[in-house]
Amino acid sequence: MELEFLGTGAGVPAKGRNTSSIALKLLDELNEIWLFDCGEATQHQILSTNIRPRKITKIFLTHLHGDHIFGLPGLIASRSFQGGEEPLTIYGPAKIADFVKTALQVSGSKLSYKINFVPLVDDGLVLENDSFKVYARKLEHRVPSFGFRVEEKPRPGELLIDQLKQFEIPSGPIYGKLKAGEIVTLSDGRVLDGKDFIGVPKPGRIVTIIGDTRRNKNIELLAKDADVLVHEATFSHVEERIAHAYYHSTTTQAALVAQKAHVKRLILTHISARYTGKNAYNLQKEARKIFSNSQVARDFDMIEIPMKG
Amino acid sequence: MELEFLGTGAGVPAKGRNTSSIALKLLDELNEIWLFDCGEATQHQILSTNIRPRKITKIFLTHLHGDHIFGLPGLIASRSFQGGEEPLTIYGPAKIADFVKTALQVSGSKLSYKINFVPLVDDGLVLENDSFKVYARKLEHRVPSFGFRVEEKPRPGELLIDQLKQFEIPSGPIYGKLKAGEIVTLSDGRVLDGKDFIGVPKPGRIVTIIGDTRRNKNIELLAKDADVLVHEATFSHVEERIAHAYYHSTTTQAALVAQKAHVKRLILTHISARYTGKNAYNLQKEARKIFSNSQVARDFDMIEIPMKG
Repeated sequence: MELEFLGTGAGVPAKGRNTSSIALKLLDELNEIWLFDCGEATQHQILSTNIRPRKITKIFLTHLHGDHIFGLPGLIASRSFQGGEEPLTIYGPAKIADFVKTALQVSGSKLSYKINFVPLVDDGLVLENDSFKVYARKLEHRVPSFGFRVEEKPRPGELLIDQLKQFEIPSGPIYGKLKAGEIVTLSDGRVLDGKDFIGVPKPGRIVTIIGDTRRNKNIELLAKDADVLVHEATFSHVEERIAHAYYHSTTTQAALVAQKAHVKRLILTHISARYTGKNAYNLQKEARKIFSNSQVARDFDMIEIPMKG
Repeated sequence: MELEFLGTGAGVPAKGRNTSSIALKLLDELNEIWLFDCGEATQHQILSTNIRPRKITKIFLTHLHGDHIFGLPGLIASRSFQGGEEPLTIYGPAKIADFVKTALQVSGSKLSYKINFVPLVDDGLVLENDSFKVYARKLEHRVPSFGFRVEEKPRPGELLIDQLKQFEIPSGPIYGKLKAGEIVTLSDGRVLDGKDFIGVPKPGRIVTIIGDTRRNKNIELLAKDADVLVHEATFSHVEERIAHAYYHSTTTQAALVAQKAHVKRLILTHISARYTGKNAYNLQKEARKIFSNSQVARDFDMIEIPMKG
């Protein structure tokens, strides 16, 4: 489970920062990659990574501003060109379907796979499978904008080998059955319940990704106890008024959320093009004054999210 | 008058070649830049040039395949973001308006300038101003595709200084009036007609840009006597059958047009991603066997079109 930042800029592409896109790589967990936002040239950025577009199965869009969606038609077409056959599901404000369908229709693109659109309307659970739950909540931006909380479900505890050895049970296929929680009758007549030999479940990981927004109470709910909080920080805390006027956040506002929500790690992204070099480093310093495990993302940064327990 | 190649690849972006876009820089002539096609990340390519998006006043689209249009929404939005106020005119198959309008509407983009759409339907003159005429003609592709012929109007001849000196006319403001073709009365009563002192008009330059197409008779008409012919060569002449099947051209087909149409220079573009390094060089060799002044364009190549006469 890793985050790879494909675009960490705001508004317009700059040489060092492309417009927004983040890949959540769930290769070990699901053999899938989920994308959060898809600014123009996201597929170009992908050319410099080991991501294969075919592996991208879900795209979550925080909101519909151009710097978060204009890369969709190209990525969708290339995914088909490269032989993708698995369906692609796009979660976002409802009108995204108009944009994608018009782009494909006007350009005469015929896809080798199906696209499902899941419109985001209100706060709630947007996706659940065997391993993950994804929740969305509304933020506060000039247009409807959402934050996402990806919760990994608890993983089963490990088989308590020491305890099995105390019962003098020899290793073999029985171990597998017990680990799967089955009830097993031994040749000597003893009956063992797998559940008695499995340790406590290991907690899943939590990743929170916040779209463009002003300071807003929903962010804290989405971020609660997250292993990684990815938060926009378009502006320095010096520009709090400008941030408010443009419905954006500052470094300090993001760091305060990280602190209050007890997250483990804060990654700042969606950095205005006005902050380059040392000035981008200063943004990081501002956040660290409040929340020490803060980092300003750069394009192609990779953040590993280690397993717990 | 220069051509700057912003994207010379076909279908999908590759590391060395972006999808299609060519800038015709008319800075000395009109203080404008005209774009031909606008594949995804054209605005990103522009970041590595001295082109200012504000200077782009016209965009000509050969056809509506994604690798020729998916960069439009981003470029249009950034042109506004960077303070463009001059109207932008887009020439292309009619449905381009649906794509652009939907993209701007869904993304909530408000522009600081007006966009005019000029739908291309059939062969004919699509633009005329004081200095240029642009003609479009239909090509033969899977979807309607056009080629463009940009004709510079003849420039007025130079003032014949030697002749003026024979008449013992001293240099000064009179020269400017005569050059402008005015009738001037000298202090000694002599009457001079400017027209008598201006040399023959200098022929204008011709640039022909051909969209995706199979071999087609209209290409030769568009290319006749062009100073520069930009022609797609998606495939090597070895792949003539594939080229035909996909409605594309080969190096040899392009070179034969250059020869028959008596152009001065041939630039091949829209190169399939299968040809890299030495293989791209071989494409150039194929074309040169037939038409020696041939060149395979690379991204950021600049082609100067010198004045004539």
